[in-house]
Amino acid sequence: MLTHSALTKVSEAKIFEGKQQQFTHQSSTTNCTMQFAIYLPPQASETNKVPVLYWLSGLTCTDENFVQKAGAQRIAAELGMAIVCPDTSPRGEGVTNDEGYDLGQGAGFYVNATQAPWADHYQMYDYVVSELPDLIEANFPVSNQRAISGHSMGGHGALTIALKHSSRYSSVSAFSPIVNPINCPWGQKALTAYLGENVEAWREYDTCELIKKSAQHLPMLVEQGLADNFLVEQLKPENLLAAAKSVNYDLTLNQHEGYDHSYFFIASFIEGHLRFHAKYFS
Amino acid sequence: MLTHSALTKVSEAKIFEGKQQQFTHQSSTTNCTMQFAIYLPPQASETNKVPVLYWLSGLTCTDENFVQKAGAQRIAAELGMAIVCPDTSPRGEGVTNDEGYDLGQGAGFYVNATQAPWADHYQMYDYVVSELPDLIEANFPVSNQRAISGHSMGGHGALTIALKHSSRYSSVSAFSPIVNPINCPWGQKALTAYLGENVEAWREYDTCELIKKSAQHLPMLVEQGLADNFLVEQLKPENLLAAAKSVNYDLTLNQHEGYDHSYFFIASFIEGHLRFHAKYFS
Repeated sequence: MLTHSALTKVSEAKIFEGKQQQFTHQSSTTNCTMQFAIYLPPQASETNKVPVLYWLSGLTCTDENFVQKAGAQRIAAELGMAIVCPDTSPRGEGVTNDEGYDLGQGAGFYVNATQAPWADHYQMYDYVVSELPDLIEANFPVSNQRAISGHSMGGHGALTIALKHSSRYSSVSAFSPIVNPINCPWGQKALTAYLGENVEAWREYDTCELIKKSAQHLPMLVEQGLADNFLVEQLKPENLLAAAKSVNYDLTLNQHEGYDHSYFFIASFIEGHLRFHAKYFS
Repeated sequence: MLTHSALTKVSEAKIFEGKQQQFTHQSSTTNCTMQFAIYLPPQASETNKVPVLYWLSGLTCTDENFVQKAGAQRIAAELGMAIVCPDTSPRGEGVTNDEGYDLGQGAGFYVNATQAPWADHYQMYDYVVSELPDLIEANFPVSNQRAISGHSMGGHGALTIALKHSSRYSSVSAFSPIVNPINCPWGQKALTAYLGENVEAWREYDTCELIKKSAQHLPMLVEQGLADNFLVEQLKPENLLAAAKSVNYDLTLNQHEGYDHSYFFIASFIEGHLRFHAKYFS
């Protein structure tokens, strides 16, 4: 059993009658101080525990991007849903980093690193799957009903985590996800660094590979802009469609003319994702 | 007649089926390059010109804060309203600045400076009242129906401009505005620098003073959070209430328990402001 270290509140503001908060805590998984954001809707109380949507952000992001730019609190307040946003990597002076924006701090890729010098801290997979939900459920008025979503690298994180832990989540969604990291430059660079040269180890973190061996199918919704600069080289939604079709996985992929990779795209369609997840909370 | 210099597009993204754009242009009023943001809702076209809401931001902001954090595009897209966000001051290497966050670049206070070294560039009042609307109406599919709103220093700008040009705007609103700058530290510092020591000159930029001599009353809506750290020392909404009451100006002031000075407050209530302004567009 995990021992939860104390939470330190960093900020709090009222928004849409709920509370937007940030906390830090000492993580036993990533072996450093981690920061996360939580939105508690006005319905949340000890006698009315609310379900939680976990949101995983993309490269270069922190716990703040989604909170400030997606406009999700309005809908979460209506639906009575908490939203938890972890950081995208371990951080701090003692944490290995890289000069690239797509490796190291801000780019944890939601994997458990096995290679030096990354393995000491880069355990974002276990952090998101276990330590963070345990901490949230022990310290806030939330139930153990969970959904998971994310953007780009975070869409990759959400899909892979949900596919491997389908009993822990009632639904999964993603915006502009990296669905086939073993076959794109972002994924190949990060997985080589964190997991080493053996591609077999990478397949455990590849949505297109995992979906083919998923036993329990979850409701899955993916949103993709067709003016996304990363569409062809990095995102490859056609690979996800083909993999899902090969095993009759019931995937909804919405593709939108003219939308790019930014939070303007997420803001435009986040309402549909929150309503989608709310349908599957019992 | 102004000669409009060319607009240079800095960015464009699709959001809520409309276009969020940024442009720079050489301003003849502020004598430097200015940047602004415009949201064009999907209804806007040469055969269907839409009204414009001008949004003036607060201290330290640029043209980007409202665009990224307020969540206003969703409602503007529904209502068919453009939103134009100017910067909060002239900027650039050749533009006088100050070390404080509340004077100089990022803190133009929407006045026409008369004092050296500020007068060369700090002409934000004329820029917002004349040059910018002329530029917008000459270059975008918008009508000459205008409303104006803003936050904090920008709420001060919106209220003072609307009070002095009530025929140019159909309605005015503000979030957490500085309503009585001649009686608060932010205002006294900025007005001394930009206008000199003579308080008589300051009264031309003070909402509480201007409202008392306003001939034509505009629909006016003000939103204020009661957990705003600046409420007592800087904002003083009670002074606005008293001034409005003294001349029977029909002001709606909504005060909200628990909300602070941030964009989380603006996001929570911006929908009501856009619907308010839409009512008065003919």
